[in-house]
Amino acid sequence: MAKALPVSPLAPAAFPDLPQIAGVEFAAIESGVRYRGRRDVMLARLAPGSAIAGVFTRSATRSAPVLDCEAKLAAGGDTGAGAAILVNSGNANAFTGAAGEGSVAAICSALATAAGLPASRIFTASTGVIGERLPHERIIASLDALVAGLAPDATEAAARAIMTTDTFAKGAGAVVPTPAGEIHIAGFAKGSGMIAPDMATMLVYIFTDARVPQPLLQRALSAHTETTFNAITVDGDTSTSDSLMLAATGQGPVVIDDLAAGAGPAFTQALHSVMLDLAQQVVRDGEGASKFVEIRVTGAVNAADAKRTAMAIANSPLVKTAIAGEDPNWGRVVMAVGKSGAKADRDRLSIRFGDVLVAEKGWVAESYTEEAGAAYMKRAELQVNVDLGLGNGAFTAWTCDLTHGYISINADYRS
Amino acid sequence: MAKALPVSPLAPAAFPDLPQIAGVEFAAIESGVRYRGRRDVMLARLAPGSAIAGVFTRSATRSAPVLDCEAKLAAGGDTGAGAAILVNSGNANAFTGAAGEGSVAAICSALATAAGLPASRIFTASTGVIGERLPHERIIASLDALVAGLAPDATEAAARAIMTTDTFAKGAGAVVPTPAGEIHIAGFAKGSGMIAPDMATMLVYIFTDARVPQPLLQRALSAHTETTFNAITVDGDTSTSDSLMLAATGQGPVVIDDLAAGAGPAFTQALHSVMLDLAQQVVRDGEGASKFVEIRVTGAVNAADAKRTAMAIANSPLVKTAIAGEDPNWGRVVMAVGKSGAKADRDRLSIRFGDVLVAEKGWVAESYTEEAGAAYMKRAELQVNVDLGLGNGAFTAWTCDLTHGYISINADYRS
Repeated sequence: MAKALPVSPLAPAAFPDLPQIAGVEFAAIESGVRYRGRRDVMLARLAPGSAIAGVFTRSATRSAPVLDCEAKLAAGGDTGAGAAILVNSGNANAFTGAAGEGSVAAICSALATAAGLPASRIFTASTGVIGERLPHERIIASLDALVAGLAPDATEAAARAIMTTDTFAKGAGAVVPTPAGEIHIAGFAKGSGMIAPDMATMLVYIFTDARVPQPLLQRALSAHTETTFNAITVDGDTSTSDSLMLAATGQGPVVIDDLAAGAGPAFTQALHSVMLDLAQQVVRDGEGASKFVEIRVTGAVNAADAKRTAMAIANSPLVKTAIAGEDPNWGRVVMAVGKSGAKADRDRLSIRFGDVLVAEKGWVAESYTEEAGAAYMKRAELQVNVDLGLGNGAFTAWTCDLTHGYISINADYRS
Repeated sequence: MAKALPVSPLAPAAFPDLPQIAGVEFAAIESGVRYRGRRDVMLARLAPGSAIAGVFTRSATRSAPVLDCEAKLAAGGDTGAGAAILVNSGNANAFTGAAGEGSVAAICSALATAAGLPASRIFTASTGVIGERLPHERIIASLDALVAGLAPDATEAAARAIMTTDTFAKGAGAVVPTPAGEIHIAGFAKGSGMIAPDMATMLVYIFTDARVPQPLLQRALSAHTETTFNAITVDGDTSTSDSLMLAATGQGPVVIDDLAAGAGPAFTQALHSVMLDLAQQVVRDGEGASKFVEIRVTGAVNAADAKRTAMAIANSPLVKTAIAGEDPNWGRVVMAVGKSGAKADRDRLSIRFGDVLVAEKGWVAESYTEEAGAAYMKRAELQVNVDLGLGNGAFTAWTCDLTHGYISINADYRS
């Protein structure tokens, strides 16, 4: 990073107190992949018996680590052996040809030796600049020290090590009481730019001590992706490296063998909360963001149309610059609804900024005043509510505004 | 407009010398719809016998004038009576409920009286802020003076009157020699922001003295829209008011009754050139633009995939900010190719900045140097060439960079 970015005004006050997850240890180290003076590699070691689920970018140019993770998850693998997740920042190892695959293999092989794990259970990710060779020898040289430093409470250090243009570390956790005992969930994420929906997500790692068979774990993760990470956008651009992994160590007291019965619903609900919290933190750290915006679309003919409408609004540069300028320019919301491709009827849709009714019946609402709209727009957290008045389709998306900060970060910083 | 914007550095040196079109007269006047101290209404009167074709936005929230034009063109109408096009800037008359339709009817009725034309042959457009009532009485009060001022050489004044955030007036023309005599074509356009493809266009008016039956005229216009106005993007946002109209007065010596024979091919080729010139001028006046960028995609499995890829690159905020920063960040081009949804293969695609081979075979090209890339990016006019290496699908799109100027214009100016 060329220079330190100021912390987002939408950042939480502090990194949260996350529960420790039995069976998971973390470590972070400065290997010098690209940055100087900060840790840039994180390792998570998972105890034998851990199940792992993942969701990855659908980009046609996805990175070598993503391809490797997908192949390993598809192959299954020996859960009895334990597992590890290794992530570096500063270099995405994407579009690096066969050399990229070679780097992944070299890292996995070296970590297998250092940590006493099969390479087939080592999952990697890389985030940062695209198209430059990953200096994997620097990472490999750090592995022994990394393994030696593993500790159950090093979550925040791990979360910090995977940051690129992020201005704060993003963590979320939950403690779920059940009759069989508590389930603990802890996760962290990185992401700030190149954030777009409809693929998978950025880099996100979530851990739980519940015992969940891998197919159930994958189903729970996939089910919640659509309404959390696939419901956010910063700039409509989609990373080559997006990865979301969920690991269940099974070292806590709770066993889940049905998502719909026993502790299943409480677990999936808590998982959804943790995922949504992390997804919203990514938006709060959107490059240059000064406003956090929830776009709620209701009354669409179906859910797909509702999402299309919400995302057209959330990705519109004209809507996002109006929000940056605190201009209640609802005409641009109308424009975005119109261009979305979703079925809409000028005379049936209504628009509200928070509770302020702005437009209905094909025109500005009689009760609306520019003063009320302008006052609402001064908030740091905004809601844009659009009811299409056609059916029951609904979708909620989260985004941020588009400011000079985004231009400065992306015209100056090479990531 | 709150303040005068500096003229785009990509503007042509001057408004071109356009041929006069027999059978067309123009006038422009200051009616005070919104702006002060500049003309904001333009009138074009077309002689009896003129044929008119149009292409309009496909937005679901299109404006009252667009709906009116579509209905009138669909109904046909008496070409023997002459026709008129009336356009105001400063107010889009979009999302203005039934009042919007009333404004259009009132203007058409008053102009019918003032100009001695049937209201069914009067086509209007409005451009500017969305959702505010059009003060049509100001326009109506100006109509007699407007009609009295009609002159065949007032093209530039007409082009200026329809500008909003445009920083220069956009005109293009052609003189086509044919065995039967010359065909003259002249046109002008406005557009700078809220410019996106896949719908129709901004406001564009093109005139010719050739005699062309309306169905042929419409076919010629529609055929060229895809590769001209539908191939440009400034910000991915689509106006509620986009209108492109082509009028043929039939007062010149040339009669076209087949687009593929006689003077047909020369006419459609010249029409394409005029449309492309105007479309590219809109990009050159893209809000905040400092670079003019041609995106050429070849080797796609089909034309639709080529367009999808070109538009994903052209609309990517990360690509556009890298260009603004003169950063040869080709990894962002890879990212945009990957997210486009088009079929792509990392190891078969190649990327060139102009003639500089940047990436091939899944990685940076051996011959590429950062110095060569950086030197190329300093140009004001850039070419990004992507060959997907899969088939024969090709598409070329034009866009501009994303700068602080775009944010300033759209966070400050309400349009």
